[in-house]
Amino acid sequence: MITTAVQEDLYPSRTSSQPEWIPRKDPVVHSEGRAPSTPLTSELVADFERDGFISIPSLFSEEEVDAYWTELKRLSSKREIRENGSTITEPESGDVRSIFNIDRVSEVYNRLARDPRLQNVVRYLLNDDVYIHQSRVNFKPGFRGKEFYWHSDFETWHVEDGMPRMRCISASIALTENNEFNGPLMLIPGSHKQFISCVGETPADNYKSSLKKQEVGVPDESSITRMADEYGIRAPKGPAGSVTFFECNTLHGSSGNISPYPRSNVFFVFNAVSNALVDPFCGRDPRPEHIANRTDFTPLKPL
Amino acid sequence: MITTAVQEDLYPSRTSSQPEWIPRKDPVVHSEGRAPSTPLTSELVADFERDGFISIPSLFSEEEVDAYWTELKRLSSKREIRENGSTITEPESGDVRSIFNIDRVSEVYNRLARDPRLQNVVRYLLNDDVYIHQSRVNFKPGFRGKEFYWHSDFETWHVEDGMPRMRCISASIALTENNEFNGPLMLIPGSHKQFISCVGETPADNYKSSLKKQEVGVPDESSITRMADEYGIRAPKGPAGSVTFFECNTLHGSSGNISPYPRSNVFFVFNAVSNALVDPFCGRDPRPEHIANRTDFTPLKPL
Repeated sequence: MITTAVQEDLYPSRTSSQPEWIPRKDPVVHSEGRAPSTPLTSELVADFERDGFISIPSLFSEEEVDAYWTELKRLSSKREIRENGSTITEPESGDVRSIFNIDRVSEVYNRLARDPRLQNVVRYLLNDDVYIHQSRVNFKPGFRGKEFYWHSDFETWHVEDGMPRMRCISASIALTENNEFNGPLMLIPGSHKQFISCVGETPADNYKSSLKKQEVGVPDESSITRMADEYGIRAPKGPAGSVTFFECNTLHGSSGNISPYPRSNVFFVFNAVSNALVDPFCGRDPRPEHIANRTDFTPLKPL
Repeated sequence: MITTAVQEDLYPSRTSSQPEWIPRKDPVVHSEGRAPSTPLTSELVADFERDGFISIPSLFSEEEVDAYWTELKRLSSKREIRENGSTITEPESGDVRSIFNIDRVSEVYNRLARDPRLQNVVRYLLNDDVYIHQSRVNFKPGFRGKEFYWHSDFETWHVEDGMPRMRCISASIALTENNEFNGPLMLIPGSHKQFISCVGETPADNYKSSLKKQEVGVPDESSITRMADEYGIRAPKGPAGSVTFFECNTLHGSSGNISPYPRSNVFFVFNAVSNALVDPFCGRDPRPEHIANRTDFTPLKPL
């Protein structure tokens, strides 16, 4: 008898004309019993389980952040970085909005990704070796930083990239202060425990516009309202060097930024090696490699 | 000898290719010595002088706010209100964004404008009888409320409407909670003491687009940054019924609103009768009556 290796779709989305809530089928904290290691305390583990995110102020020092900026300036001035197809620009001004693959183009950022302060957190919570599904630096400029509407990263990564399960954590390392005025990350604590199946169909090459303004894979307003009414909204604040770890299914978004102050961050998506990508569940061609790494699942070596 | 009554332009703007800071030539608090009356304490008077705004939480009760909403629903359902030319809609969705002349079309709102809790504040600070230069209700919907970029109201009222001096105060009465997520009013305390002369020329019929998205009469980024660095930014929060009084030259703006919660308010501009409009200083035709009242300077009768 021949068995086919078709992966079951536990979280179907964009397949129906009605939104649906599907209870989470995966653990939030995948480890049990082992004592957490620095900087992850038992209390933070409990917070992550309940809220779907934790924020640790000043996990990296001012001096370290300065070094990340120095490296960023070096990279931004390099023509091959600006023009290599994995750099995203603002729709109107043409300013650089994101540089993808930052851990591959920079030794400094590669070492940051493997820093024990990040690795100890994600390896414990995921109870596995991890590889980088996506990495980028977001420049959110002052005066004209654009909003990012509410979404679950997992919804997109599952449907468009073929990430099978919820066993993936993002780390956002602040390169500038996050304050109430510069469009900080807003999260709905507890939202990671439900998968909101979105309405609509995935168009071909959706990524070309969705990274600038997302229009498919967007939760319905009624679901967002219900979640916010029940759980509230939170926006971690803190100095540069603070880190927010958030679960791949936690609903989040950010407002535009008219303040004079940029809101820049480094963003690493750490996926469990046991959760490596399969074919996209929407049946479309996969997105480009710099948006969804599907060729190299080699575990990161923690420093 | 014939003398011409040409009004001197104390605050020229949009006349040069370089921005300029012109020190304020008018008092902030126009009264002296008289004891402030409820709800205006001496401390609030000092705050207003220093910051260019004060915010008083829950100046109106929940029951009163409910009555304002009831009236608003009644008005919004009336075709002659929706279609009378002084109702502004969102560029994309067509939703009602603002209803102007609210004190003229509604007895309930007319009485609100004449409420002693507002009148005692503005009449003391301006040391004069007042009339309404502009009134409106702003509906800032959840999920898609648009940002409003930094500006001084006085700059526009002076250049486009012919308001001679800084002797005018706006009152914004919150009809919904203001919180950090729903795009609250942001102000730069202390900015009212300098007039930032803007670059550019006023196009004809500028008001048709500037009420949706302002592009002329916008302060330069360097001036905004200097002000924010020196004075900071503040965004008063509070329940529905809270009131922010702000001086006509205080720099302010607001972010977009992707939260599920609207941010609606009533907005009255109280101008001193001694500061009634003259011809616009830009030499263009005046803006329409519902945006800049130039026909009726009759003092409001406080209740």
